[in-house]
Amino acid sequence: MLNNTAIQGNAFYSLDFDKIRYVNNGIFCVNDEGYIVEVYEEKDKDYDLIRLKYLKNGKLRILSDSEVMLPGFVDLHIHASQWPQAGTALDKPLETWLGEYTFPLESKYKDLEFANDVYRDIISSTLRHGTTTALYFATVDTEPSILLARLCGELGQRGLVGKVVMDEAKANPEYCRDSSPEEAINETEKFINEVLKIKGLYKQKVYPVVTPRFIPSCTSEVLEGLGMLAKKYDVHIQTHCSESDWAHKFVKEKYGLNDAQALDKFGLITSKTVIAHAPFLEADDLELIAEKKTTIAHSPLSNAYFANSVLPLKDFASKGVNIGMATDISGGYSPSMYQAIRQAVISSRMLQDGVNPSLQSDVRGRKDSSITLNNAFYSATVAAGIALDLPIGKLEKGYSFDVQIIDINNNIPRFYKEKNTEDLLHKILLLSESSNIKEVRVQGNRVK
Amino acid sequence: MLNNTAIQGNAFYSLDFDKIRYVNNGIFCVNDEGYIVEVYEEKDKDYDLIRLKYLKNGKLRILSDSEVMLPGFVDLHIHASQWPQAGTALDKPLETWLGEYTFPLESKYKDLEFANDVYRDIISSTLRHGTTTALYFATVDTEPSILLARLCGELGQRGLVGKVVMDEAKANPEYCRDSSPEEAINETEKFINEVLKIKGLYKQKVYPVVTPRFIPSCTSEVLEGLGMLAKKYDVHIQTHCSESDWAHKFVKEKYGLNDAQALDKFGLITSKTVIAHAPFLEADDLELIAEKKTTIAHSPLSNAYFANSVLPLKDFASKGVNIGMATDISGGYSPSMYQAIRQAVISSRMLQDGVNPSLQSDVRGRKDSSITLNNAFYSATVAAGIALDLPIGKLEKGYSFDVQIIDINNNIPRFYKEKNTEDLLHKILLLSESSNIKEVRVQGNRVK
Ligand SMILES: [Zn+2]
Ligand SMILES: [Zn+2]
Repeated sequence: MLNNTAIQGNAFYSLDFDKIRYVNNGIFCVNDEGYIVEVYEEKDKDYDLIRLKYLKNGKLRILSDSEVMLPGFVDLHIHASQWPQAGTALDKPLETWLGEYTFPLESKYKDLEFANDVYRDIISSTLRHGTTTALYFATVDTEPSILLARLCGELGQRGLVGKVVMDEAKANPEYCRDSSPEEAINETEKFINEVLKIKGLYKQKVYPVVTPRFIPSCTSEVLEGLGMLAKKYDVHIQTHCSESDWAHKFVKEKYGLNDAQALDKFGLITSKTVIAHAPFLEADDLELIAEKKTTIAHSPLSNAYFANSVLPLKDFASKGVNIGMATDISGGYSPSMYQAIRQAVISSRMLQDGVNPSLQSDVRGRKDSSITLNNAFYSATVAAGIALDLPIGKLEKGYSFDVQIIDINNNIPRFYKEKNTEDLLHKILLLSESSNIKEVRVQGNRVK
Repeated sequence: MLNNTAIQGNAFYSLDFDKIRYVNNGIFCVNDEGYIVEVYEEKDKDYDLIRLKYLKNGKLRILSDSEVMLPGFVDLHIHASQWPQAGTALDKPLETWLGEYTFPLESKYKDLEFANDVYRDIISSTLRHGTTTALYFATVDTEPSILLARLCGELGQRGLVGKVVMDEAKANPEYCRDSSPEEAINETEKFINEVLKIKGLYKQKVYPVVTPRFIPSCTSEVLEGLGMLAKKYDVHIQTHCSESDWAHKFVKEKYGLNDAQALDKFGLITSKTVIAHAPFLEADDLELIAEKKTTIAHSPLSNAYFANSVLPLKDFASKGVNIGMATDISGGYSPSMYQAIRQAVISSRMLQDGVNPSLQSDVRGRKDSSITLNNAFYSATVAAGIALDLPIGKLEKGYSFDVQIIDINNNIPRFYKEKNTEDLLHKILLLSESSNIKEVRVQGNRVK
């Protein structure tokens, strides 16, 4: 215990899909490795004793009444390389967005100085917004993708990073694609090995991720090879899946299967796979991914622009599917997981009630679809820990000490004590700006 | 010209529903009364001469390259009194939201000290977020409602304020309603007179607004009386209209008419009327309000919670209806018009594409419904000036100098010059937080 430190204060975290736990004036003891080794509450008999010990050793940090701890958020799908164009061109058709904005931008990262500037900025920006872990798409180029992993390590974020694979000549411009399936697989293997080499250099670790962009941008050969690589190295996998009408139909026509089934044939549906978006999954897809413990990354902001629909989160969750939350920069414009959480609730309500006032209410929406803020908070924290098979998302013994300390006297109206503690959590989730986040810690280390 | 001041810098404002005007390094000359008297651009032959004159007199403020001016936003529908509960109870059913949260809160304002604390805070908060004009619902009580108008005046916001009328015993608890139609009308007239007395004390002025809460909470007698008062004093009118399935049906059953038609019978549909929400307006309602030049206040955040649908903004606008933008605190949780603008675009896209992925794409949505950021920006500025019949919303000669000065080097990724100036405006609109707003001016006066 001698080397441990402790923080005393109020905290919220998610217990399960519905329930929130509020810890009143808890003492969170953290070891050198950055893990929570014990949480004491006022009712515990050792509480005063423990408190005094830490206090005497000068190892107790006491939060004020206007500070509240939340677990750090996990962004399960974000294109680090698209950060420079965040907030632009979303009114444009998809072809323009891709051809005139996204592909030209993604091809710039061969310039490692540009990569260094952008990647530092997106890591710092997401950390500032309380994102302690992120599952990143980099670009097709290997060197800058390794750099992204290294910068996550250096700046203290738990980064899971993928070199993007996109070798299909029909789908990708020559200046922004893998030159062949073999090259794509070799480069991915090289990427995995390089990142595994540096993985342990950082307290919070960084991880390589097998990253086929999505089925339409990959050849069958490359998908097969990537499935084998993922198995060989037992690494995480990420891709886009059944995102839009177009993508859903494309895969069905090419393989006679839905995305999830097709990915599974290539060995790409595992318990370490995160599929982005996926509103168009059908019953057998859901059964498959529930069984394989594959996670959906829900990006409600981006979906409003590119998915032609809303993810039926509540329905899919009720079928045993694990669902995390994501910004999807730059399909989504905001680097803040707070915005993702807010829009997830809003979109779910719009799914439930429907949108077109000219239709009768009984046919306008999809029954029993609305989710609560508690559900969305769970997705942004605990579900992501399950998705990535990492001890993150809760503030309990054995978990990594990944936290954001919120100043509740800024931006949040406080004219009386809330009726219940959940009301306060909801105000924090709905009204905070990045300036409310006074401090962020990853694996115990202060990064903001 | 001697007493005028000038600001030199870059600015954006809306020309019409679609078009944005970018002023590169303009000189905006502002007189003592806070009106723009001239705008010079680099191409104008007097530009250098004018610039030198102001410079010599020490009356020229030069913005840096990282600063951009936008017109201040106009919040066309906001319940100042609901600010303390912003962000809470939105998961609750409407009865709970009203009965356990909203009505008990609104009845607290009899305590003028409480009113003073809350109202100062909501005015400062909205000013900090760039809202230079706001159309406020206060509460049923007259004294605190007058106080709200006075505080807008003192804190420098252009406030249009209504004492809320709600006299129907079946709809409102005894502790939060007008005791009779006569009392409601007398109190409203008193309120109007008191606010008219102080209206001119403030450079930016404050205005009284006739404010029946909505038809279900009012008796026919009171609606008739309010229509007469509005006519007698030629003041603004605000109310809720055809907001939800429930409200829409209620009015139809009571009067055999839609809300807009019923309001019109009472003289409450005028060119100075702002009706909040109104997604359920039908063809003849739209014809009526287009002809009467009545404006809809669109609150997309709040609508996701309470309107059971999305306002078909593009469709209604194409029928000649003027549509402004609003936060609807606390049905909407955010005091920021930026959030309203963002959600308006997102909701419109969801209306167009539909929400339920189980439906075929051709029946899922409502064709040609998506609006652009430019459209939403227009609604939040120029449309509101039209709605209120005030010279606000543009940065042109004759308009009030209501501006927000944005720091574009904070929160906004800037790694290269944007492809076009509109891209920069879109980044500002989508990525700014309140900390981006360095300075706010209303009628020329600095208020942030
Ligand atoms: Zn993506
Ligand atoms: Zn309202």
